[in-house]
Amino acid sequence: DRNTGGCNSQTGRVASADPRNNITPRPLSVFFYFVCASDVCMTFLPCYCIFVCTDLLPASGGEKVTKEFLHELLNILLGYICKSSRRSGKVLDFHHPHQLKEGLEGFSLQLTDKPETLEQILVDCRDTLKYGVNTGHPRFFNQLSSGLDLIGLAGEWLTSTANSNMFTYEVSPVFILMEEVLLKKMQGIVGWSDDEGDGIFCPGGTISNLYSILVARYYFYPEVKTRGMRALPQLAIFTSEHSHYSVKKSAAVLGMGSENVLMVKCDESGKMIPVELESSIVAAEERGLVPFYVNATAGTTVYGAFDPFNDIADICHGHNLWMHVDAAWGGGLLMSDRHRMKLQGIERAWSVTWNPHKMMGVPLQCSVILIKKRGLLQDCNELGAEYLFQRDKPYDVSYDTGDKSIQCGRHVDVFKFWLMWKAKGSEGFGSQVNKCLENAEYLYDQLQRRTGFELVFKNKPEHSNVCFWYIPPTMRGLPPGPDRDTRLHQVAPRIKHRMMEQGSVLIGYQPLGDKVNFFRCVFSNPATQQEDVDFLLDEITRLGNDL
Amino acid sequence: DRNTGGCNSQTGRVASADPRNNITPRPLSVFFYFVCASDVCMTFLPCYCIFVCTDLLPASGGEKVTKEFLHELLNILLGYICKSSRRSGKVLDFHHPHQLKEGLEGFSLQLTDKPETLEQILVDCRDTLKYGVNTGHPRFFNQLSSGLDLIGLAGEWLTSTANSNMFTYEVSPVFILMEEVLLKKMQGIVGWSDDEGDGIFCPGGTISNLYSILVARYYFYPEVKTRGMRALPQLAIFTSEHSHYSVKKSAAVLGMGSENVLMVKCDESGKMIPVELESSIVAAEERGLVPFYVNATAGTTVYGAFDPFNDIADICHGHNLWMHVDAAWGGGLLMSDRHRMKLQGIERAWSVTWNPHKMMGVPLQCSVILIKKRGLLQDCNELGAEYLFQRDKPYDVSYDTGDKSIQCGRHVDVFKFWLMWKAKGSEGFGSQVNKCLENAEYLYDQLQRRTGFELVFKNKPEHSNVCFWYIPPTMRGLPPGPDRDTRLHQVAPRIKHRMMEQGSVLIGYQPLGDKVNFFRCVFSNPATQQEDVDFLLDEITRLGNDL
Repeated sequence: DRNTGGCNSQTGRVASADPRNNITPRPLSVFFYFVCASDVCMTFLPCYCIFVCTDLLPASGGEKVTKEFLHELLNILLGYICKSSRRSGKVLDFHHPHQLKEGLEGFSLQLTDKPETLEQILVDCRDTLKYGVNTGHPRFFNQLSSGLDLIGLAGEWLTSTANSNMFTYEVSPVFILMEEVLLKKMQGIVGWSDDEGDGIFCPGGTISNLYSILVARYYFYPEVKTRGMRALPQLAIFTSEHSHYSVKKSAAVLGMGSENVLMVKCDESGKMIPVELESSIVAAEERGLVPFYVNATAGTTVYGAFDPFNDIADICHGHNLWMHVDAAWGGGLLMSDRHRMKLQGIERAWSVTWNPHKMMGVPLQCSVILIKKRGLLQDCNELGAEYLFQRDKPYDVSYDTGDKSIQCGRHVDVFKFWLMWKAKGSEGFGSQVNKCLENAEYLYDQLQRRTGFELVFKNKPEHSNVCFWYIPPTMRGLPPGPDRDTRLHQVAPRIKHRMMEQGSVLIGYQPLGDKVNFFRCVFSNPATQQEDVDFLLDEITRLGNDL
Repeated sequence: DRNTGGCNSQTGRVASADPRNNITPRPLSVFFYFVCASDVCMTFLPCYCIFVCTDLLPASGGEKVTKEFLHELLNILLGYICKSSRRSGKVLDFHHPHQLKEGLEGFSLQLTDKPETLEQILVDCRDTLKYGVNTGHPRFFNQLSSGLDLIGLAGEWLTSTANSNMFTYEVSPVFILMEEVLLKKMQGIVGWSDDEGDGIFCPGGTISNLYSILVARYYFYPEVKTRGMRALPQLAIFTSEHSHYSVKKSAAVLGMGSENVLMVKCDESGKMIPVELESSIVAAEERGLVPFYVNATAGTTVYGAFDPFNDIADICHGHNLWMHVDAAWGGGLLMSDRHRMKLQGIERAWSVTWNPHKMMGVPLQCSVILIKKRGLLQDCNELGAEYLFQRDKPYDVSYDTGDKSIQCGRHVDVFKFWLMWKAKGSEGFGSQVNKCLENAEYLYDQLQRRTGFELVFKNKPEHSNVCFWYIPPTMRGLPPGPDRDTRLHQVAPRIKHRMMEQGSVLIGYQPLGDKVNFFRCVFSNPATQQEDVDFLLDEITRLGNDL
């Protein structure tokens, strides 16, 4: 009763002769497998309908099934990768939550007590990709991370095959050393000297920013580690009104209170105004707060603005404040000879957040916190758990860097990045960044040439962010004011809604301060070409023309 | 000048006719590729010596090279996977940091300005695996996470191919729904009713535990989010002396102070003693502290002990304290009908940490925090960033769960777990857990039968942890006391040192309290059989016999 019916379905649930006949896992001979693959089943997938996961390694004799299964998976993934890179394919095939939950074409998200066959597993893999969003598509502009770097992907596949952990040199010797190599490389690129610089890879830019505040607090008040915030004065943090919300989030998590994050005013293009910082610091001191930390941003989330780092560094120096640069998004520009001057002064920062998973195109996730002063990260976070960080190991235990982390187990995020650097060289990253910024300039030019588009701010974008409104024909004659704003506020969401339904392109929008909903286009995908920029504007026009 | 010399090297640096001749990335025709692969190069790898990463997709015409490259990678990974599952292979091939940094057989960790060929990239992949630790080997007992689940691996490969982010339903519709399905499933298994339960996947057990304290603090003192710890009384946290160090680490990060984590005494087998908890609470109150949170452990890190949850729940109820259960390691036992009674009372917890990447064998990393009261996680962490969490989206935005997180971008850790559940069913996880615990029982029996071994505590292990000393022949007659202890303390590290050099097996050791260095064996790898347990004991005897 092995053959449980048709296994030629190409989507959804695999048909079963008798649905009550649950398959019990048991090892099957390779011989039987061949019979099945060649004779019984009429399908494009080899017949996995009789195999279950316990037939895979480490099952004795499982090599053959394992190889075939992973080859079949590779074919599915390759099909997706190739399709993703074609402009003819959709960016997404939108369904509402309730539709996906009801099960589309037999794709069921529900989990049961009994195992599924390997064939069903492969079908589930294909369906998962089918109903997801194609973030590698050349016309996916929705997020700061986009594209699919094949070398990075190879790195991630290897990482998961190695399935190790960044605790200690003992379990991850190669990855620990790669982390050291990359951190040093990045510190050098930031502009720190060889005898300074420390850091760690961590899960995302928000956690990187959190580290910077955590370490800064410890630097000024080491007693906080044991005694907590109540032993400290009321600290104040400064960041620009255009900066990322992670500064406030971190302050809340760290027990410092989000209201003690003081928002410094920006100029029209989203850059922090240094005199505003200076006066905020003075005002906070007058209110009895103790300023200790300033976050400057290299590449704000919406506008892509770069704060004036040297001016901010002067102020921090004058007041003895920790200067952090959140270069999560803008750090990539350091790789480009053409654009790195936009980060002038970053070398004066005491800590830097940099997300290779954004502008450098490393697969998610890959984020770094760099700390200028060595040893601080370890002192701030170490607890010396003896089951992991034994001092009587037979190697140099300074390589057991896991106690620098606020995590215990830590995913290996470094290898894909290392491999990409090997494959591209620093120069390759530079070209990639240049190309993204050329696309942004092209969009900026097109927006000025085409009718119906309006820039949110006039200056040429410094990063790859381009912010704009689409003004439908019926609104073009309207005078500025609340009525126009109310109508304009609804344009971007409505166009986006149609975009999602059509699946042709994806771009983000948001309001900001007194500005109603506008589109933010960002370029970080090396697959994107000028024709995609043209397509985006054509599509917005087509979808918004009647609004 | 395309053919840069020999490309038949099987390890290390690919030979180049002229090392100064740096290869410039440029697209190559598929035709040229075939000529190369069939004629020019004498190698087991197809000739990638003329291709570089810019020949891969999204390069125009890059499909062919992409497919060949990923197939070649798959062969390397499959070779590793198959070798890993063979007992004849080594667990590790140890090298000191300075040896790896100097470059072994041409394997260079250093990064340069110029790109490498795809051939070199594949060689680097092979070398990275070669010098790493084989965590999937049936004789790797070093960490709570071990083994290599092939379905989980497939899930991780797909995840990285999809390269998405858990921000919003908009970019990760399928993964967001899978997270919901799994969280509900796990909440049900913990024993919570359908109308309670919330949670999120997060990067590791320490961060999960940190969430529990963060949310508990917010529950009692919501003003902490905006005003910080200084607006609160001095809070106290209770956890057992055998619990994981993440409780202290979290208290330090959250600004609560590690000294305000009060360590409750345990019995001989590592379980928290309820009357000790009660008296600690009373004593803390008398000192002016405000108790608010108790961490109980399901499966302590070293002993694998389960705290008495019902007794602890009674005490928490009496004092109106938040009860958290850290089931990072022990949660997996809930999947087994045979063992789940060890977690009796866990359903009374207000939050639970559970790491599927430990006992359930999900690839790293996969960790969950479950919170009983709905909405708390969102209220505690949300900041409502308008560029991500627009309220005017065309779908039910309650599915944009990203603002529950302390992260912004969040890696997709859920898919591999979902896929494994599909493939195994709940029952499959149960059998896997049972098997690991059978191995532990077998080891426990063998230790009592063999000469030269001594158990650290007499009771049968509750989890798969087995703690023991090896007593070399010369020490067997020594009376208990400081002299014997001093010598015994050195035995485990010295055996481990030799183990690492031989690479035959890997197991952890540590001191604990007044107990000198002892081995801790843990079973979470379904590949491990009784013969591996025998091998471990034989090997310890062989390596430690002369000490």
